[in-house]
This record gives sequence, C-alpha cells and structure tokens, in this order.
Amino acid sequence: MPAAGVLLTDLYELTMLQAYHAERMEGVAVFELFVRKLPAQRRFLVAAGLAQAVDYLLGLRFDDGDCEHLVRDRGFDPGFVASLRDLRFTGDLDAIPEGTIVFPDEPLVRVTAPLREAQLVESRLLNLLHFQTIVASKAVRCVLAAPGKRLVDFGMRRAHGAEAALLSARASYLAGFAATATVEAGRAFGIPVAGTMAHSYVQAHRDERSAFAAFARAHPRNAVLLIDTYDTRRGAAIAADVAKAMAREGIAIRGVRIDSGDLAGHAFAVRAILDAAGLRGVTIFASGNLDEFAVRDIEARGAPVDGYGIGTRMNTSADAPYLDCAYKLQAYEGVAKRKRSEGKATWPGVKQVLRRRDAGGVLAGDVVALAADPIGEGVPLLEPVIRAGRLLRPLPALHASRERLATELAQLPAAYRSLDGSAPPPVTIAPSIRALAARIDAATSGTAAG
Amino acid sequence: MPAAGVLLTDLYELTMLQAYHAERMEGVAVFELFVRKLPAQRRFLVAAGLAQAVDYLLGLRFDDGDCEHLVRDRGFDPGFVASLRDLRFTGDLDAIPEGTIVFPDEPLVRVTAPLREAQLVESRLLNLLHFQTIVASKAVRCVLAAPGKRLVDFGMRRAHGAEAALLSARASYLAGFAATATVEAGRAFGIPVAGTMAHSYVQAHRDERSAFAAFARAHPRNAVLLIDTYDTRRGAAIAADVAKAMAREGIAIRGVRIDSGDLAGHAFAVRAILDAAGLRGVTIFASGNLDEFAVRDIEARGAPVDGYGIGTRMNTSADAPYLDCAYKLQAYEGVAKRKRSEGKATWPGVKQVLRRRDAGGVLAGDVVALAADPIGEGVPLLEPVIRAGRLLRPLPALHASRERLATELAQLPAAYRSLDGSAPPPVTIAPSIRALAARIDAATSGTAAG
Repeated sequence: MPAAGVLLTDLYELTMLQAYHAERMEGVAVFELFVRKLPAQRRFLVAAGLAQAVDYLLGLRFDDGDCEHLVRDRGFDPGFVASLRDLRFTGDLDAIPEGTIVFPDEPLVRVTAPLREAQLVESRLLNLLHFQTIVASKAVRCVLAAPGKRLVDFGMRRAHGAEAALLSARASYLAGFAATATVEAGRAFGIPVAGTMAHSYVQAHRDERSAFAAFARAHPRNAVLLIDTYDTRRGAAIAADVAKAMAREGIAIRGVRIDSGDLAGHAFAVRAILDAAGLRGVTIFASGNLDEFAVRDIEARGAPVDGYGIGTRMNTSADAPYLDCAYKLQAYEGVAKRKRSEGKATWPGVKQVLRRRDAGGVLAGDVVALAADPIGEGVPLLEPVIRAGRLLRPLPALHASRERLATELAQLPAAYRSLDGSAPPPVTIAPSIRALAARIDAATSGTAAG
Repeated sequence: MPAAGVLLTDLYELTMLQAYHAERMEGVAVFELFVRKLPAQRRFLVAAGLAQAVDYLLGLRFDDGDCEHLVRDRGFDPGFVASLRDLRFTGDLDAIPEGTIVFPDEPLVRVTAPLREAQLVESRLLNLLHFQTIVASKAVRCVLAAPGKRLVDFGMRRAHGAEAALLSARASYLAGFAATATVEAGRAFGIPVAGTMAHSYVQAHRDERSAFAAFARAHPRNAVLLIDTYDTRRGAAIAADVAKAMAREGIAIRGVRIDSGDLAGHAFAVRAILDAAGLRGVTIFASGNLDEFAVRDIEARGAPVDGYGIGTRMNTSADAPYLDCAYKLQAYEGVAKRKRSEGKATWPGVKQVLRRRDAGGVLAGDVVALAADPIGEGVPLLEPVIRAGRLLRPLPALHASRERLATELAQLPAAYRSLDGSAPPPVTIAPSIRALAARIDAATSGTAAG
C-alpha cells in the first residue's frame, strides 16, 4: 500500500492552490472543522484524532516524486508545482483536546494559516479527525453500558483497512477500553494488547480437551480458552476438567470465552460449572456481534461476565458510520465569511467554545462565541497547539486524554449519558455570531449578484 | 502512522502460532473466507481486494523489529519468535477473481498452507477483502442507478482513514465509477482523477464572478465551477456570464457543480440558464449526500445531470458498513472440519463454486460443491492464484476486472439488479457438503465430550 503522504488529498485542493498561486492570493485564512448535526443515535461526541492531525501538519511537504507526478501525470503547471517544494505548514492550530466531550457547531480545530496551507490540509484533517471521533463516540457508549467491566477492541478484521484498524484501537482505548487485540496498535500507541484463541485452534486438534491442554501449556500464565466451538456448556465442563488437571502442573487457566448463542444465559451456566469445580478465579469473557445495547442487556440480567470483546460494530461505528462534518472558511484576510448553501449554511467568524459547569462541576451548557468575545463565566475549550508551524508543547499522552474523558463522563448529566436519551445538544450560538451572520448575509446578497 | 506490516494482526493469531510451534503442529490446513449472510440492503456482492491480499501474502515476513517487539514487549517465547524469522507464505491461494458477482456461502478465497501460515494471515486477509468487497458492492448499486452517467468518488474525507480512502477509490472504480477525487489513489492504482473547487475558494474571493473568472484562467481547459455557495440559480447566471466572457479569451468552462438543495430541480433550472446563454456544452455535475437511491430519484425525474460526485455513503457503505464474513478452518491434514457454534455453524470441506448460466449467458444459479465433486454443467469460480508461495501469473489489471464486472452485470437477472429487490441468493449447497456435515457432526459429538 502507498504511504499516506501529501497527495492523500482531494484533487480540488491542488487545483485551487494552482489558482491561488496564479492570483497571488497569499493572505491569512481561518478554517474551522466542526460537526453540523449529531447522528440520531448519539447524544454527544468525543474529540479524538488530534495527535495524528498534528503529526500530519508538522510533516507536510511535497517530495520530488510528488512534484513529478503532479506535472507529468496530472498536468499541473510546473511553475506552480515548483512553488510547492518549499511549502510547509507555517500557521497556527487551535484545538479542543482529545478526550473532551463535544457537541455540534463546536469547532474541533481551527487552522489559521496562509490560504494555500490552510486549504490544502482540508481533506486529510477531516479524514483523520472524523474517523477517530466517530469511533471514540461509539466506543464510549459501550463503556457507559458496562461500568467497571474490561472491554477489549476485537475489530481489526472488519475495520475499513489498516489505518482504521490501528486508529480505532487508539480511539476505543481513549474512550475507556482496556486493551486491543491488534498487535501493531499496541506497539504504535502503547495500548495494552489482549487475545485468546480462535475456533480453528480447537478444530485443528483431535478434540477440545487436547486443544485446551496444549494451549494452556504453551501459555501457562494467561490462557483464555474458547469454549463454544461445539457446545458451550460441554466446552465449559471440559475447560474445568483441564484447568484442574493443569493446576497440578502449576499451570493456571486465566479465563474462558463464549462467542455465540445466548451469552448471558451461557455465562450463568458456565459460571456455575466453573464454581462447582472450585475455579472461582477463572474469568468469563463474552464476544460476538456486540455493541452497547447487547452489552447493556447482558449487564441488566446480572450475568457473570467479566469482560467483553467488542469488534465490528464499534470499529465501524456501524449504526452511524459517518458524521455530517465540514472544514469551512471562516475568515480571509480578517474578513468573516459565511457559506449560505441551502441546508448547509455555516456560522461565520473565528470562534471559541465556552463551557459552563455548575458548582458541582457538572456540565451546564456550552456557548459557541466569537473568539474575540469576552469569556465571561465559561472555560474556553479550544487551546493553542501550534504557533507559526511549531508545536507549543507536547500533546497529552494517550492515557492522560483517556483520564480526561473519564472525568468528563463523570460530570456529564444523565440525559446525555443515557444510551437512548433524546436530550438536544446543550449548545447556544452567541448573539455576537448571529449578528455577524446577519451582517454578512446582507453584504453578500449584494456582491454575489455582482 | 505505522506501516501495515505483519504485526497488523490479532494477538490471538500469534498466541496460537506459539502453541502450534510448541506442539509441532505443522500439517497442511485449508481455510476459506466467505460471507455468511447478505445485509438486508444487498442482493449480491462484488468480489474485490484480491490484488492487495496477494501482495500481503507474497510479502509476509517478520523483520528484526517485529521479533524484538514480540519477545521484549509481548512476552513471547524467544525460541518461537526465532522460528518466525524464516516464516514466508509457502502455500496455495485459490480465489474468485475481482469483479465477479458473488453470494453468501461462496468462498471468496481458499488458503491451503502449513497450519501456522494459514492461521497467521486470517486477520489481515479479512481486513483487506472485507473492505473492498463492501465498497464495490455499494458502489455498483450507484452505477446501476445511473446507467451511462459519469460517477466520481468524492469520499476521501469521511472514509475511515488513509487506506480506506485509497482502497475505496479502487473498489468504486472497479465497480464502474469513472474517476476518483483522491490524488494518491490515482497514482497508486492508475485510476482517472477528477475535481472541481470548494466553497472556500468562492468565499475567499470578493464575489462569485471574480472567483469563477480567476479559476477559469488558472484552468483554461477544464474548470468546473461550484455555483451553490450563495444562491444556485444566481450562481448559474454568473457562471454563464463568466463563460461567455472567457470564451472571448479562448478559455472554455467545462462544467458547473451543484452541491445542495433540490439537485434535480436546480439542474433543470441551471440547464435552462446555460442553454439560454448558448452554453449547451457546459456539463452539470451534482453532489452532496448522494447514494444510489438519491441518484435514482434524480434520474427518474429526467434531470439534466451529466455526472455525480458520490462520497461518504459509498466509501463507508453507510447503510451496511460491514459484512458477516469469516475465515474458517475447513480441513486439517486432509480431515474436513466444521464449527458448530450456535447460529454460526459452517459448511465443512474444501469447496468450489460452480456457476450455471442459461443459453443467453444469464446467471441461472450457483452450486457450492466440494472441490473434489464432478464439475457437471457449472463453471468453477475459484481459480488457482498462488502455488507453493509463487504467483502463477500476473493478476488481471484493474480495468480488466472492471470490464469483467460490467459483463457480469449485463448477465445478472433483473431481480438481483434491482435496488430494492428481495430475491434470495441463487445459491445451492451441494448434497455432498450436506452429507459431509452430517458425518462430521456425528463424529464430533463423540470426541467433543472426550
């Protein structure tokens, strides 16, 4: 697979850059990336992906092969392409930190840079921030559905390609998952890695008993046995037999996994079988087409499940696999801008989000204001990250963002934590922005006809 | 981002490999990758992703860094990890060619290899084949909805990461799209690349007139003007004015794009405005939240739209963002295997798909048979691709697979081509497989208890 370099972008970014170059339009532009509307199945979003977005901006450059390709194969003007060789991101980035709970109309990042730098980065910034945000926002619902339980990302195989596999592991860990099954994600992001065995392992052996014994001997401290290849309860009985026999060799079975059928019902039966064999320390892990609702149902029945492997539906955010998000020009050369397309109008101006909390720290509401407005009682969510192309300070470590989110969740009103709540986003657009929009509309109506 | 190397896999593949190594289980295994069930919104699937799967198998190897990581950070046995240094894919791959129409229960690929090679590749093979197959299967519905129209992939920004952006461009081209907006996908896969301009370009200028004129001068042969930033019909009138003025400078506007509102209604009005200005050759391109149903509605109204930019909903296969697919052990050391987990039982044995066509070439039905069964009247879909770790012959070029699919679509009965048809898959499981399943079940019931 090709690397995700600077040509991982929409062609129109480059055609616009060629026009800007010809016009010598080099003024400072301000773009903001925001979500227009929540999917029906979400009450809030979790900001995620900033670390990769920052890496992208700081690494932005066209190499010889890129430039050659643009001239030779895409027909771009050689003079324009020559000007790309020195292009770096020299602008500013302000962003809401990863792990922050966010709502529609709130800029997740704001890019302030010479026009062509700010324009060029649109496609990949959206690609990076959109994806991790949808996954973190789905994964956090699983976390809310099973408080205190160990959740493991199992979804690499049906994630949409390699980067989706890696970044969904990252985003779900940020959301509160305990581990991922994806080895490379563990290496790349320092996430704990976990895994059990596949049905094929059991099938490749003469019978379950010999499979379980061989696996335990190969993993004497941490074997988790998959017991549903043929018949779950019979599998549990065999696992219990093997665990007792292995104990005499000094080998401890850590747990069993159930992957099919009535997971809660099986968990009760399997727990009873294990307990009757004196194996109270052997944990039960459940997996198979799980999402937040399936997990909540199992928890509601009080099933003795210690952890859940959650895959496809989380990694693809299956019930809401995309967000209505955009990266829009808010100002150029100091003049506020507004798109008025039907159903897609944007709020103009350079913005800040002010979050208010009550005396107990509980989120009371957000105001989307102009960055120039007085802050008042709110805490500003957008923070300076890059200035003049340089990172101001290292970004928080992933585990710190994960803790930030855990704290935010504890301070989130129940109406937003509920999986099927219908509370509208607690977001107000400041009067200053509404007034600016009205002024721009009045002015643009004139010039658009010009 | 880290590269998609051999550690882009589920941990359990490696824990199983360590156990197989300890047990000296080195026999030949046969695994098949198949889809259990169609999503409710699909009548057929398009096989896609084989080229990347083959690259992956042929490039399979653990480098020093991988091995170090497994010992130092993941606690794998050094002796086992040493054995991975020489691991290559030395087995066989049989596959249904890309661009073939396929149905559930049909193996898309069959891997025949020493157990640990065949097991290790599970996660990434699924990751690669699943994704392109869902995208091609979604994109082909858009192609069916707008026969003869020019469709362009616009979805990079909301595709799930970099690889999803690139591979969805590839899969949609395979399905019949004309081009992609993603520059790197054009370079990597030789796909035509197309693009227009963003609203920000218009907004950055004093007014639409100056934006359109400047863009046309920068792209004198192929400018497509986005006319809905403020008011679509007024934008069309300005575009027409600019086009006429530009013509006097020898510059030809190629088209206009509409991205919001009632696309069909606007298209009629915009066509009238352009035609009245004598600009019959200027095309109309529509985009904005499109999928096969939106396109079909626009076509049904007879709207004068020449092409469609289709993004997010296609690239994420938004109404069915995953398939219920699996990679399952079918035989080990010549003995057929079957998983019997509740709701997830598999058909055992090494299989072939036999496709029957009527005298006119129209698909009449598929039989999933044992590979050893007589072929009878059907044409076998699975073909040898890799033997003993070597590619037998170059895979078909992407455009050849695209033509293959176009031919297959022409031979697909209307019940399957219909966007909202409900015809069940035309797939029969051969009696030989049913008999084998019954024999295995009888035998396994005994040993599972053992």
